[in-house]
Amino acid sequence: MVDYSPAFMTDMYEYTMLDAALQDGTADRKCVFEVFTRHLPEGRRYGVVAGTGRILDALERFHLDDEDLRFLSDRKIVSRKTIKWLESFHFDGSIKGYREGEMFFPNSPILQVEGTFGQCTLLETLILSVLNYDSAVASAASRMVSAAKDRPCMDMGARRTNEWSAVAASRAAVIGGFQGTANLLAAQLYGLKAIGTAAHCFTLVHDNEEEAFRSQVQALGKDTALLVDTYNIEEAVKTAVKVAGPDLGGVRIDSGDLASLAQRVRNQLDALGASKTRITVTNDLDEYAIAALQTAPVDSYGVGTQLVTGSGAPTCAMVYKLTERENSQGVMEPVAKKSKNKATVPGRKLAYRSYEYYLAETEHIISGSEEKLAAFQPDEDWKDLLVPYVDHGRIDSSRQGHQAIMEAHDYRAQALKELPITAQSLMRGEAVIPTETQVL
Amino acid sequence: MVDYSPAFMTDMYEYTMLDAALQDGTADRKCVFEVFTRHLPEGRRYGVVAGTGRILDALERFHLDDEDLRFLSDRKIVSRKTIKWLESFHFDGSIKGYREGEMFFPNSPILQVEGTFGQCTLLETLILSVLNYDSAVASAASRMVSAAKDRPCMDMGARRTNEWSAVAASRAAVIGGFQGTANLLAAQLYGLKAIGTAAHCFTLVHDNEEEAFRSQVQALGKDTALLVDTYNIEEAVKTAVKVAGPDLGGVRIDSGDLASLAQRVRNQLDALGASKTRITVTNDLDEYAIAALQTAPVDSYGVGTQLVTGSGAPTCAMVYKLTERENSQGVMEPVAKKSKNKATVPGRKLAYRSYEYYLAETEHIISGSEEKLAAFQPDEDWKDLLVPYVDHGRIDSSRQGHQAIMEAHDYRAQALKELPITAQSLMRGEAVIPTETQVL
Repeated sequence: MVDYSPAFMTDMYEYTMLDAALQDGTADRKCVFEVFTRHLPEGRRYGVVAGTGRILDALERFHLDDEDLRFLSDRKIVSRKTIKWLESFHFDGSIKGYREGEMFFPNSPILQVEGTFGQCTLLETLILSVLNYDSAVASAASRMVSAAKDRPCMDMGARRTNEWSAVAASRAAVIGGFQGTANLLAAQLYGLKAIGTAAHCFTLVHDNEEEAFRSQVQALGKDTALLVDTYNIEEAVKTAVKVAGPDLGGVRIDSGDLASLAQRVRNQLDALGASKTRITVTNDLDEYAIAALQTAPVDSYGVGTQLVTGSGAPTCAMVYKLTERENSQGVMEPVAKKSKNKATVPGRKLAYRSYEYYLAETEHIISGSEEKLAAFQPDEDWKDLLVPYVDHGRIDSSRQGHQAIMEAHDYRAQALKELPITAQSLMRGEAVIPTETQVL
Repeated sequence: MVDYSPAFMTDMYEYTMLDAALQDGTADRKCVFEVFTRHLPEGRRYGVVAGTGRILDALERFHLDDEDLRFLSDRKIVSRKTIKWLESFHFDGSIKGYREGEMFFPNSPILQVEGTFGQCTLLETLILSVLNYDSAVASAASRMVSAAKDRPCMDMGARRTNEWSAVAASRAAVIGGFQGTANLLAAQLYGLKAIGTAAHCFTLVHDNEEEAFRSQVQALGKDTALLVDTYNIEEAVKTAVKVAGPDLGGVRIDSGDLASLAQRVRNQLDALGASKTRITVTNDLDEYAIAALQTAPVDSYGVGTQLVTGSGAPTCAMVYKLTERENSQGVMEPVAKKSKNKATVPGRKLAYRSYEYYLAETEHIISGSEEKLAAFQPDEDWKDLLVPYVDHGRIDSSRQGHQAIMEAHDYRAQALKELPITAQSLMRGEAVIPTETQVL
């Protein structure tokens, strides 16, 4: 049902670099690339990694068909030799990285890609696209879930972002702590819980509200949620209980002052004997609006725009940098650019998180020569943040699919508990733990 | 190469509504849905429509395969009867809307979808996803292009947004006035100009900068653009001209104070005889940064993050509302919801723009009964803003593909000239022309 190659989800310069590097021989040099961000969005205490599983899905489909090769050739983007090389392209390098659901901080080496220069350079844009967007959504979701405490948050944002972004956002939202999504393709592709009942147009297409409610209850059962703000909320709630009885599953409010409306609707429902009927609210919610609804009798939140646009931070500013490569003598050498404000730390990295009294204290990034890194002994209670995703071309399939998403969902909740509690507040401030980079 | 069905790029409630409506008969009622936004992003003077051609592409592929139908059935989302209906689903309604590249304002009826309730409701999320994202990018692009005056702007944002968003963003950027994109899939799918030469990693993978430049010039020719800020810009420019000679095509600066660096590099290039070598700058540019570079000797801009995230407005808040439908007597009736702050204007709309001394003056939205609308006579010089996209299921293919994008690109430039010049300034303010809604 979904059949595409991600091989062109890339910037043209990756192919022109490959072309030049194949001609001069550097395409075969062993390289280590690293994904990291220099800073969190302003005021944020932490980020949440998401998307890595989708990178694995994309890697499986990363190949060029005849049409693609013809395009490169017709547009004279690469030479004949490069076309030959691309015909049999298969990534056989290795990838390590942070778990999905793991917290990250400035300079956390979220992903490490190791292979030849030719291989690794082709993956740059794709890897960044996935991690930048998915992690932006998961990071926003995580804050919303903290603000919602035990009340479930549901993704209803598909309409406010690109149609494929929407699918990625649903997955990232669940990793960030959401319980389900309105998006059907995400539910199908990733086995997520799908939710949703009816929109205002359903009420409007009927001659009156009562007929609409009757039809919905007839088709979806009494446990459905009726949307009560098309005309007059008080009238609608009365009609809803009249039609479905006191066992009505829920009502949804999508406009107005949600706190006071929820309170009035709760009282009205209780008075009508519908004390178990749940109240869902959905109207331009973000983490602050959710926090403000803490004392209102709300049972669940449907979040749209602010979820899929990262609540003010629609991307993570992650970059993909060459940190180590073989030189002309075949020896691995750390490398770094020196561009102003964009200088990089040379060399492959190790990454650990240290704890004190069961609470995270510092993110340790260790860099150095291969020998020194191999000999490095972390403290006993440090958590190794890098896990294997791809080993010489072999993808660890346990990190793909539904099960991996649910594990990441659980992992996030646990990892967040291990951060200082400030992380869960919405107060603006610095990263909740410092990142220390140590060069051996 | 791209083969997917957009039929599940939708919220589940569209299928549950369809299911209930098929059971009670309202699924067959004729309906008119309308896409509009209640407000522009804060401070913006106008928006630019983009994405409609992509909706046509999606409509062509909008069908459910066996796997999809099984999913709906297994998850008990719809009944057997609905599965039957979906098996042969084909949209045979009609769609009118604003041209791609056209300006829009609050309440502009950007798209009108007419068909049965069952048909139209299935398209809601997909249509909104496409228009909300693509128009956000085109609107931001248009401001950047105004700020850049005659200097070309190029899309380099793929890495900072979802991998499919990136493709849509390239297309929308060109509609918004950009000249080309770094994204290869967008170039392939839509025939766009592709640009890009090399990244910092290309310099780093070589033993030194000179070898990297030599290799690039060897592979891509003297007309290539060399990236000069990996180590020391002054040294790099010297090396670049040494390697490529004074006919070097261009240099790119991706860090630091771009204005003063461009000035220094220009002087240095001129002193080295490379007076025709172009300077491209690319470092977190937005429309304000571009405007600030007006006096700097820059030849083109590469824009990333701020383009693909709509420069602070990553979505357009467009909604899809039922405005008219058949009642139980088979008579078309205007309908509207009354939700607080979200009330809608009932009835199908006509849309015109009036002019005074060749400058746009007012956006006229006319609503009323079908008879009154049919009899309405606009003033002679009013521009009819609604053009046909789909006529009873027949897609107007002249609005799809490369040619349509380039027409939209030209159309935007012309339509912007016809707005009061305030639209081209970056000063925050109200929509540059008022929208007047008239109910006949």
